[in-house]
Amino acid sequence: MRAAVWYGAKDIRVEDVPVAPPGPGEVTIEVAYCGICGSDLHEYADGPHAIPVDEPHPESGVAAPLVLGHEFCGTVSDVGAGVTALVPGDRVAVEPHYRCGACSRCRAGEYNICRHFGFAGLMGHGGLAERATVPAYMLHRLPEQVSLEQAAVFEPAAVALHAVRRAGIRPGESVAVLGLGPIGLLVVQFAARYGAGRVVAADLSAARRELALRLGAAEAGADLAGVTGGEGTDVTFEAIGAQDTLRACLAATRRGGRVMLLGLAGTVAVDAFALVNNEQTIMTSVGYRDTYPELIRMVAEEGADLARIVTATVPLEHVVRDGFEALLRGQEQVKVLVRPGERRR
Amino acid sequence: MRAAVWYGAKDIRVEDVPVAPPGPGEVTIEVAYCGICGSDLHEYADGPHAIPVDEPHPESGVAAPLVLGHEFCGTVSDVGAGVTALVPGDRVAVEPHYRCGACSRCRAGEYNICRHFGFAGLMGHGGLAERATVPAYMLHRLPEQVSLEQAAVFEPAAVALHAVRRAGIRPGESVAVLGLGPIGLLVVQFAARYGAGRVVAADLSAARRELALRLGAAEAGADLAGVTGGEGTDVTFEAIGAQDTLRACLAATRRGGRVMLLGLAGTVAVDAFALVNNEQTIMTSVGYRDTYPELIRMVAEEGADLARIVTATVPLEHVVRDGFEALLRGQEQVKVLVRPGERRR
Repeated sequence: MRAAVWYGAKDIRVEDVPVAPPGPGEVTIEVAYCGICGSDLHEYADGPHAIPVDEPHPESGVAAPLVLGHEFCGTVSDVGAGVTALVPGDRVAVEPHYRCGACSRCRAGEYNICRHFGFAGLMGHGGLAERATVPAYMLHRLPEQVSLEQAAVFEPAAVALHAVRRAGIRPGESVAVLGLGPIGLLVVQFAARYGAGRVVAADLSAARRELALRLGAAEAGADLAGVTGGEGTDVTFEAIGAQDTLRACLAATRRGGRVMLLGLAGTVAVDAFALVNNEQTIMTSVGYRDTYPELIRMVAEEGADLARIVTATVPLEHVVRDGFEALLRGQEQVKVLVRPGERRR
Repeated sequence: MRAAVWYGAKDIRVEDVPVAPPGPGEVTIEVAYCGICGSDLHEYADGPHAIPVDEPHPESGVAAPLVLGHEFCGTVSDVGAGVTALVPGDRVAVEPHYRCGACSRCRAGEYNICRHFGFAGLMGHGGLAERATVPAYMLHRLPEQVSLEQAAVFEPAAVALHAVRRAGIRPGESVAVLGLGPIGLLVVQFAARYGAGRVVAADLSAARRELALRLGAAEAGADLAGVTGGEGTDVTFEAIGAQDTLRACLAATRRGGRVMLLGLAGTVAVDAFALVNNEQTIMTSVGYRDTYPELIRMVAEEGADLARIVTATVPLEHVVRDGFEALLRGQEQVKVLVRPGERRR
């Protein structure tokens, strides 16, 4: 089959890869869509960051070169021994977190922070391919009301939903979102669902601000200071991951308020004297847990449209030029999906 | 009256200060005890940090030179116009937070983060004096079962109690405390009360570790790594306030756990990549709110002994030599109380 394989920074090759039948507890799916995530982009631009290179990941057993892509969905084509809950033809969304099932976090249900933290498509083979084989526990069967186009964005939607849940928004609290990439936009879309009153947003891109307004933001500006007046917001989501944006988020947040970090910054300087005197909390959110059933309900029962963040769909053969390079060039694209079956249609 | 007046770093003078009668809404107390806090020590060593020098504090109307000391209690000697809840002879503990009463935080009951944040004894005249005049709202009348010796440590106890409450310890969670000054020791004493399972503590001083064990710590070591094994603790209290100790706290805390900052560090470097991937939370706690009634109950009804952290009581005249200088010299002293009435006895 054809697959986009990460060999190194600026070296992703679309090439033929052999397909083995699924092992015990595994399922092979024909991939309908696979989105390109900011993490994928980092791996392409100047990786490896999360991709295992020297030692295989303990859950996947894989090290680079590996098939990239963790935002995928598709149709079951083959199931391994012991898999009884799924049959070929089932349409499924992939929740790509690995879980060891044995560590204290897995036993507490917090499998997103498993000691063997990782994602299929970053720490193991993923979905930028015609077919993908993953553990059956990663799969959620889609009811007929949920299209594969919607399921294609479940993974970034899960990231946003988990962060919104963790923020513990109390009814009517004000929310600000800095950074209107896919995750930031989905946080805007979900904040009111979890009780937020006024939601404001900031991003340098006018197109992204426009999209935020359509998704429910009351106001959107080029920077946070322009949209959060007075004593600051109750909760601010940092969906970029940088020194300056973290500082801007803390400044835009009221005394006693929370800043939720979603972006993966490196080492940042924090004014701990001000942080303590303002009694602010820095929260973080990584991945997701127990979010896919709610996403399925949102789409199937409430008619939510999560796919409004999708700005392009490209064939697998052109993923580097029309996907990675296009996303690196600028902010015109928000979410780019790859359709590996394109060639076969 | 005699008072210890802060003029500048290394310049605290015990001198005669005129006494005015209490204004409307104010109360004058004869100070029984006033503790020396780490903040006072910082002001003495290399201040000003919190003491207003150029402009008077908006609530106190005072700038330096000012009477230092915010951990005090005593007996009401005079009340100003409009004060009806207290009469001369009442024994009182002072809760020295200023409150504007009008900002969003005061209206939400979070007066510890009032826009006019401050303490009598740092941002206004305090209790290292024979008498102190403060707003009546700062005073809590003591029932007869509560001695002034116990009330003398209510202020640091309030800091610890507020932090323990904010940490939201769930039943059985493990707790670590780094830094066994008065606040850290009181956190050790209170953690089990709020549900903590195993409590461990770390400090370089063997004497302080010994005291932590007597106050309820299951284990105490020179560093956190030695007392928190396995996957790390659920909640770690940072009661020092420094770059290295914050890093040690994060390292000693499990994935998904919380670090509670009580110490006032300056700008610190935080590995935000690790913080997010470990889904850890950095919480902060400053001052206290609604804590004095519980402290009174703890002593009056439950027989708690909060004064076990007191290691010396010195007369006001010798506060610089036997208080500030002794505390700066080393870690032999934990909590030093000043007894301004000593001379008169």
